Amino acid sequence: MAHKSDPKTAPNISPLAPEAIADVPGIDGVRIATAAAGIKHADRTDLLMMVFDKPAAVAGVFTTSRCSSAPVDVCRRNLLVGRARALVVNSGNSNAFTGKKGEESTRLTAEAAAKAVGCEPNEVFLASTGVIGEPLDPNKFVGRLAGLATEATPDRWRDAADAIMTTDTYPKILSASPSIGGVEVTINGIAKGAGMIAPDMATMLSFIATDAPISAPVLQRMLTDATAPSFNSTTVDGDTSTSDTLLMFATGTAMARDCPAITDFDDSRLDEFKAALGGLCLDLARQIARDGEGARKEIVVTVKGAVSDRSAKRIAMSIANSPLVKTAAAGEDANWGRVVMAVGKAGEEADRDRLQISFGDVRVAVDGARDPDYEEAAAAAVMKRDTIEIGVDIGLGEGCWTVYTCDLTKDYVGINGDYRS
Amino acid sequence: MAHKSDPKTAPNISPLAPEAIADVPGIDGVRIATAAAGIKHADRTDLLMMVFDKPAAVAGVFTTSRCSSAPVDVCRRNLLVGRARALVVNSGNSNAFTGKKGEESTRLTAEAAAKAVGCEPNEVFLASTGVIGEPLDPNKFVGRLAGLATEATPDRWRDAADAIMTTDTYPKILSASPSIGGVEVTINGIAKGAGMIAPDMATMLSFIATDAPISAPVLQRMLTDATAPSFNSTTVDGDTSTSDTLLMFATGTAMARDCPAITDFDDSRLDEFKAALGGLCLDLARQIARDGEGARKEIVVTVKGAVSDRSAKRIAMSIANSPLVKTAAAGEDANWGRVVMAVGKAGEEADRDRLQISFGDVRVAVDGARDPDYEEAAAAAVMKRDTIEIGVDIGLGEGCWTVYTCDLTKDYVGINGDYRS
Repeated sequence: MAHKSDPKTAPNISPLAPEAIADVPGIDGVRIATAAAGIKHADRTDLLMMVFDKPAAVAGVFTTSRCSSAPVDVCRRNLLVGRARALVVNSGNSNAFTGKKGEESTRLTAEAAAKAVGCEPNEVFLASTGVIGEPLDPNKFVGRLAGLATEATPDRWRDAADAIMTTDTYPKILSASPSIGGVEVTINGIAKGAGMIAPDMATMLSFIATDAPISAPVLQRMLTDATAPSFNSTTVDGDTSTSDTLLMFATGTAMARDCPAITDFDDSRLDEFKAALGGLCLDLARQIARDGEGARKEIVVTVKGAVSDRSAKRIAMSIANSPLVKTAAAGEDANWGRVVMAVGKAGEEADRDRLQISFGDVRVAVDGARDPDYEEAAAAAVMKRDTIEIGVDIGLGEGCWTVYTCDLTKDYVGINGDYRS
Repeated sequence: MAHKSDPKTAPNISPLAPEAIADVPGIDGVRIATAAAGIKHADRTDLLMMVFDKPAAVAGVFTTSRCSSAPVDVCRRNLLVGRARALVVNSGNSNAFTGKKGEESTRLTAEAAAKAVGCEPNEVFLASTGVIGEPLDPNKFVGRLAGLATEATPDRWRDAADAIMTTDTYPKILSASPSIGGVEVTINGIAKGAGMIAPDMATMLSFIATDAPISAPVLQRMLTDATAPSFNSTTVDGDTSTSDTLLMFATGTAMARDCPAITDFDDSRLDEFKAALGGLCLDLARQIARDGEGARKEIVVTVKGAVSDRSAKRIAMSIANSPLVKTAAAGEDANWGRVVMAVGKAGEEADRDRLQISFGDVRVAVDGARDPDYEEAAAAAVMKRDTIEIGVDIGLGEGCWTVYTCDLTKDYVGINGDYRS
């Protein structure tokens, strides 16, 4: 598996990229192929096909947008069947707000993929990412699917992560190896996303596969649980995409290695797997925040002492989405007054005179005023770090939540002031 | 009245500033003085005192922040009395999140002002704007209040507008002359605000005075009505300040010119005044959006066809607060896909297949897809204008609302990445 770029030396790579892109093993029963179909750019892979040799259990979480894309609508329908034989993803065009043409495009793609792998169209899952509102011409790639289905091999996860990138500066790819009933299984995950990233939804695009034999209902519940503190606690710009799609596939091929089949969510043999899936989703989600458009800093906002977890999350999101907090981080300015502002505007229960705020391990405010022991130099040192931790204690209850975001830099404005051209 | 700067030629003035700053007449019973108290900067006026020779009826609208500033708390209390003899405003420090010290500071200021004009402390209204969380030392200015009360004159409205500026690039000042029962009265208004501007509150700071004899309850209801479509429909960055304060004073001095006293909100003799007040508030609010930090474009978002006005406002705010819509405007990019995204993420009732979107008079999308007659060049021409009108028809009901904002430029990031230093 050739690495196409070194994330730390290639130009324009986020300074928050991992030291190296993970090498991940194949998963039995999952074959992958990619192609350059010229959907938006002539010179990059923009088409991914994942083939499941036998029907895989499937679960999904999607955007809450009222204007969801045509492929999101297809996935939602197909989840009712709960069985996957293929996944087709394109980057460069999101097939969102494309009306009847968009539906026609998903129909033609699903039919071509179904024919290529020998399954029903409703066993084909689709995702698209890129410009909104431009018709997606399926003729650019449906003719390629039969060839891709044939040439697909299990070892191409890195190619898959590359193929789904848009404004990402590095591919997001991870693997974990928890055990179920003493048998080691594999979970692989890839994700993309850098802008139009916001909460109360799934993520941009992320695809996770495992060889573990887990039933679709259990898979769905685990995935929903794992999404809440990870993808749904990440924000780059507060803008929720029309295309957010997180799909997870379980091939069950580990049964050949005597892995027990799991059909009960509360089965304790699943504990290690749940933890591994949670960790993988959180790592992928943080990688998205760390590759936020123009990002130079990761910001981790933890709110505790709120009246409920839900309230803590809303306050944390208010801080994480505040342009003034984000620009202060970009300027390495320990401007905690803006954190006060963001707590105040969240509209959640808060008492000014109980509020406590810290940057990293430096407490800057306590009892509704500046900490008498506060030293600007100590806070300034925290602001120079790659990851800035903002801690807020509301002082009212037991609710807590952590949210992940990035700073707001001139590069974000530059990237997005000129995206379509 | 000397004009201190020509807004169109002084450096760093918003290109959206008015051609000239309005010359406004004095208002009988209102005297104004300003001073440079060195609260944050040594070389600029940062203290405003307004004296009402006889008790004026007063009304106010304030921030909804849960962490409102000490002066906001004072104004809220004093409104219960409903009578004003003085207003003291400082810029450079917001006296927000300053705990007991903050309350002490407001107490000392009110007492000094009361002594200076010969009234009760609860007849003194206060407002502060600037950095959050730094103690405001009242000794910097309380000694000046007696002198200011003596030297105050009616003709210094422009000085007042200058004294309350922070990151504003031009003073906001307006006058209107409606008639009540055949007698012409005057309404003057000033405002400040450029960042930390968001909806569901009053504004940053705005002070309005009139010589009309209008009772406090009627004044309050008129002011609340006028705020909804103006200050509360304006956003620069979605960040709600801790200090937002809009106060309106009615001296009643026009009774000397036989203006009838108004004590009934539904009195038809008030119609012209209501319209003038609404227009003045809207103009001041738009001036704040047009002076948004780093702004180069005004964006006017009108949503119609929503299920209710409230729903239309939420959708309009979702569009107006979207960093992706705002950066697209900065880049003069007619990226209507981002408008679709913002409609979708608002969470309000919407049907993709009924949605219609236009930039200026160019319809770009209809029936859930790109308008077949859409020409990029026509939309591109709209994007070059100083004011970009985004129109959205949800196609479901009769609800409509208009919201005012500005683009998001690299200058916003620059201004706010380095504000405290």
